[in-house]
Amino acid sequence: MRVLVPDLPDFRALAAHDEGGVPGVDLAFYTRTEVPEGAADGAVLWLTGPDTRARLLAVPGLAWALTLTAGIEHVQGQLPEGVTLYNASRLHSRAVAVHALAGVLAASRGLHLFRDAQARREWAPPPSPGQSGLATLDGARVVLWGHGHIGRELEALLTPHGAEVSGIRSGTSEAERDELLSQADWVVLLLPQTPETKGLVNADVLARLNPGAWLCNVGRGGLVVAADLVAALEAGHLGGAVLDVTDPEPLPADHPLWTLPNVILTPHIASTTADLVARGAALTRDFLIDLQQGRDPEGRVEPGQAY
Amino acid sequence: MRVLVPDLPDFRALAAHDEGGVPGVDLAFYTRTEVPEGAADGAVLWLTGPDTRARLLAVPGLAWALTLTAGIEHVQGQLPEGVTLYNASRLHSRAVAVHALAGVLAASRGLHLFRDAQARREWAPPPSPGQSGLATLDGARVVLWGHGHIGRELEALLTPHGAEVSGIRSGTSEAERDELLSQADWVVLLLPQTPETKGLVNADVLARLNPGAWLCNVGRGGLVVAADLVAALEAGHLGGAVLDVTDPEPLPADHPLWTLPNVILTPHIASTTADLVARGAALTRDFLIDLQQGRDPEGRVEPGQAY
Repeated sequence: MRVLVPDLPDFRALAAHDEGGVPGVDLAFYTRTEVPEGAADGAVLWLTGPDTRARLLAVPGLAWALTLTAGIEHVQGQLPEGVTLYNASRLHSRAVAVHALAGVLAASRGLHLFRDAQARREWAPPPSPGQSGLATLDGARVVLWGHGHIGRELEALLTPHGAEVSGIRSGTSEAERDELLSQADWVVLLLPQTPETKGLVNADVLARLNPGAWLCNVGRGGLVVAADLVAALEAGHLGGAVLDVTDPEPLPADHPLWTLPNVILTPHIASTTADLVARGAALTRDFLIDLQQGRDPEGRVEPGQAY
Repeated sequence: MRVLVPDLPDFRALAAHDEGGVPGVDLAFYTRTEVPEGAADGAVLWLTGPDTRARLLAVPGLAWALTLTAGIEHVQGQLPEGVTLYNASRLHSRAVAVHALAGVLAASRGLHLFRDAQARREWAPPPSPGQSGLATLDGARVVLWGHGHIGRELEALLTPHGAEVSGIRSGTSEAERDELLSQADWVVLLLPQTPETKGLVNADVLARLNPGAWLCNVGRGGLVVAADLVAALEAGHLGGAVLDVTDPEPLPADHPLWTLPNVILTPHIASTTADLVARGAALTRDFLIDLQQGRDPEGRVEPGQAY
């Protein structure tokens, strides 16, 4: 079996049999610009642009592709008929859940405001009791919009904080959804981007949120209509927003989200950890062993599945 | 029973019998500068400076004082003989534990660096995988130095993150302590300030820390020798520090801690929440009911007890 994998040290190590390589698998390494010639049975997609990805997916003989991402929308449009797609939600769900909690807690403890004060070398006066927005999550109503791998991880992290966690799933009725949104202190977007979810959080949905509620988006930037979010923040209807993803990305330097008071921005790094490549290579190894041993690996995307 | 309490709306409400007042208790209200005349059985100490506190503790007939703080060192030196002291650790432990976790997660997810980038309107490039310090707490060795109310709360919040939590208690041997410090990814200081703990974390202790370890101090600023901490950070021996308390407080504008790269400062607000006064008044009410019903309330400080 010949498999195309990214040219990274942790993947090179997979080829060395004495370092845990997979017998019977011949690895070939592609870079951001170079794709090895010849046929291949499978391709492990990671850290590629659309051009290289298209070339990888057009390789003769391709039977499957494993994208080491959670989202699949960037691959689906390019996937040739008959090629089975797998994704790697489990590689990212833990870090994204931890990152979302970090953002929610940072906002609750005012860390963004104190960081700004630190830059001014200013020992901000302790907010006078009763006036301060500083809080724990005890009793906070947190709505997880999208409730898959990441949602389950995040719920497990939130529960010991005394938060009341609810989920909006694809089966949640619109009435139930609006009821949850109207009572939420936090709405955390965990959805992938699909034609159905694009622009889902628009002015109408934002208006349904509990005044003072915070929005946290660690899903995809396109879930939110950026101009509507800016308007809701400027109007003071929302308490603030924790955004790891925006529309567009990168956010242009003149975008109002950079400077709105209670907006906490990170540059689409929620799933990043220092050991991500090592974990991606380990997942690839397990995947290849499963294939070699005739098991269907985890993460198979069914035709028509949005995520 | 006549009791002196701070002049705050939530405490005023305790005097109104139809709003949950305590029968048989006559409340008298002091401000930051004014202490009512006459004898009193007890005083609830909060938000006072040393002068007002000294006057409250010198009131004729005083049998007890309840400080709505966790630390007691500011009261002990002024406490007249025969006056029983109570503290209110349970009022603060939850928020302090949550704040410590918020700081640890913020550092782990680089939120302080991304906040600085946001001020520059800069979409920082995602750190290249393998280079980034971004992490979850999976497998992180977290040492809680001081393991009372707050330590237990914090351990319960850290455990679902996959952190390996250890505690240093007063009974921990020096050898065991040094072993824990040498392996820690995070050392969280939760100790009160006493003659024994002042300056405990000095150059010698800092040198024993695992290179790259982070220090989090939500105890008291004086636990750490500030100049030694600055030296350990400047030398790159420590990964960074999350400090809610410093020595001195407020931190002077020319202090190097303001600008050292991986120092995250908050101005001694770890225990602050918007509902702190309401919770303090509710605790006071329960305390007074206990006294009226002949029970010894929670939080009694034994003579000679340091915390």
